Amino acid sequence: MQALILAGGSGTRFWPLSRRSRPKQLLALENELSLLQDTVQRLSPLIPAENVWVCTNERLASAVREQLPDVPENQILCEPEGRNTAPAIGWSLISMPSSRRDEVVAVLPSDHRFGDAEGFRRTLALAAEVAEGEDRVMTLGVRPRWPETGYGYLELGAPLTAADGATAYPDAMEVASFREKPDVQTAEQYVESGNYLWNAGIFVFKGATLLRHLGHFEPEIGKGLEAIADAPERVAELFPTLPSISIDYAVMERLRDIATVPLDCGWSDLGSWEALTEVIDPDEHGNRARGDTLAIDARDNLLFADEGQVVALGVENLVVVRTGDTVLVMPRSRSQDVRQVVDRLKAEERRDLL
Amino acid sequence: MQALILAGGSGTRFWPLSRRSRPKQLLALENELSLLQDTVQRLSPLIPAENVWVCTNERLASAVREQLPDVPENQILCEPEGRNTAPAIGWSLISMPSSRRDEVVAVLPSDHRFGDAEGFRRTLALAAEVAEGEDRVMTLGVRPRWPETGYGYLELGAPLTAADGATAYPDAMEVASFREKPDVQTAEQYVESGNYLWNAGIFVFKGATLLRHLGHFEPEIGKGLEAIADAPERVAELFPTLPSISIDYAVMERLRDIATVPLDCGWSDLGSWEALTEVIDPDEHGNRARGDTLAIDARDNLLFADEGQVVALGVENLVVVRTGDTVLVMPRSRSQDVRQVVDRLKAEERRDLL
Repeated sequence: MQALILAGGSGTRFWPLSRRSRPKQLLALENELSLLQDTVQRLSPLIPAENVWVCTNERLASAVREQLPDVPENQILCEPEGRNTAPAIGWSLISMPSSRRDEVVAVLPSDHRFGDAEGFRRTLALAAEVAEGEDRVMTLGVRPRWPETGYGYLELGAPLTAADGATAYPDAMEVASFREKPDVQTAEQYVESGNYLWNAGIFVFKGATLLRHLGHFEPEIGKGLEAIADAPERVAELFPTLPSISIDYAVMERLRDIATVPLDCGWSDLGSWEALTEVIDPDEHGNRARGDTLAIDARDNLLFADEGQVVALGVENLVVVRTGDTVLVMPRSRSQDVRQVVDRLKAEERRDLL
Repeated sequence: MQALILAGGSGTRFWPLSRRSRPKQLLALENELSLLQDTVQRLSPLIPAENVWVCTNERLASAVREQLPDVPENQILCEPEGRNTAPAIGWSLISMPSSRRDEVVAVLPSDHRFGDAEGFRRTLALAAEVAEGEDRVMTLGVRPRWPETGYGYLELGAPLTAADGATAYPDAMEVASFREKPDVQTAEQYVESGNYLWNAGIFVFKGATLLRHLGHFEPEIGKGLEAIADAPERVAELFPTLPSISIDYAVMERLRDIATVPLDCGWSDLGSWEALTEVIDPDEHGNRARGDTLAIDARDNLLFADEGQVVALGVENLVVVRTGDTVLVMPRSRSQDVRQVVDRLKAEERRDLL
């Protein structure tokens, strides 16, 4: 079984810790390992490092190689340009030797969090079993904890039955439909019904099968990938011509026979500084801290120091993030607005801080 | 005329910017010069650098010498131990050649702020004229702006008349009494009456005269200073035996014939981070900033970065101070409690941060 980790993203939601040259997946937010390192480590022993492929880009490649010394260097792929996940996955698959691509491949985000690694591997192994035995495209679905409007939802169908009518796949379910980013009322209904799961962005399939689906739904991508396969030396020229589209829209929303295995292991996409409060234990005053921090008469703050020290005196419900060159101070409730800071720095051409 | 600047202090109220090795007087709080450098510069041309004496200690001596290259090196005196201001002033005076000590000497704090340097020199020159002509101990008094309980107050007496009945000293006033740190009701009465001035900690006198008063009120200090004068090589042994007492308690509160000249030139003792809001101009949203700072949707904050950057998003009435190794975040109203942080760091033996 192969793992394909998508590590080319460049989010701004963890600024100032995340930067152009050090996006979220390369950061150690919860423990001493980066989210990318955690992602690889979590797969072992189900998927050893020699079966791991990483799709990233030239800007991040050396940092990725440094963080993942056990992943074979030729399996760290650099896409010539960001064209969203459908081209990235398709191109990564055709970059594998066909013997590997014909195996089951798990596509994984590089910047999510899973508290219970063993439970995660158990779920992933079950999804791989179905993908292998039934040649199905599988997802892992997370029981929703609030009516999030930023995620995709999987509507659960019947329990999955094997094509031979004999093999049993307990816990695997058909996906009746795939709904990207509902409005808040709809999201509330989904959560209440108990019949929907969050799409955690993990897909498990035989590589050749996914390529077939991708070629079917997005013929332009299919033809482009064939052209690159015929002339790999022209990838820098051909790849940027592929339509920029996510795998969710390109395939998952359109494919009739997706199935899922519910995942219950402390998943979080760590979408903002505030999200870290879900995964870092508070002290007796509700302060959550990483690094060298000191809270005096202070409550319910998130204090983060990747070097140096942060001291909070008499403050409440703040996020204070210190990196080598920058400090950000904001109310926890403003975590989603970090983008405003990044936009301002762009406008002021402070490339040193981006 | 000589100036004696007291620069041995070690306050904690500007932590984390102020440290054991870099107390407040060595900090640049308002502009590019340190408060000590400002103090020397402000005296010129009334008192040129070659007439400036600085009383500091071994720990700070090299930094002081570096900051004040124009002050003769042998006029930067290192007291062997901090014994408060009376021994410091007495010993500094006996360390001067008698020709200098017989001149008028202005004793000045090294860490106060005076907005209008020219007005300051004018007032100082007038005080020196009285000290010279009448052989009086003079103070400079500041019109009180609020009922501060941490300062000393000078009760104004009659306008000062010259002993010869002929010379005129407009603006100089007798001091009827000297009151250290009143309670808040008393302080309010003082301010309302209009008949009291804050003691700004500046004294002007003939050196020999002050030494005589000091020997009279504190004979133990007088004898100790004589012993040191007789055997200067024994200063390290003798100085620490002098009673530890301030010049205010040792002389000023007891001396009957003190006089004062009111000082009106934007004085502040910069007693806390909050005090900086008096001397740094706000932007249109009430934010006051020094260094590389960015405020977005933020109001009435004090943002201070001596290196790197500080970004405030959506916060109000905070003090955020960043130095190389530490960040302090607190409400402006807690500025007086910085000492709690320093005490905690002492308890935790974080000498690296003190």
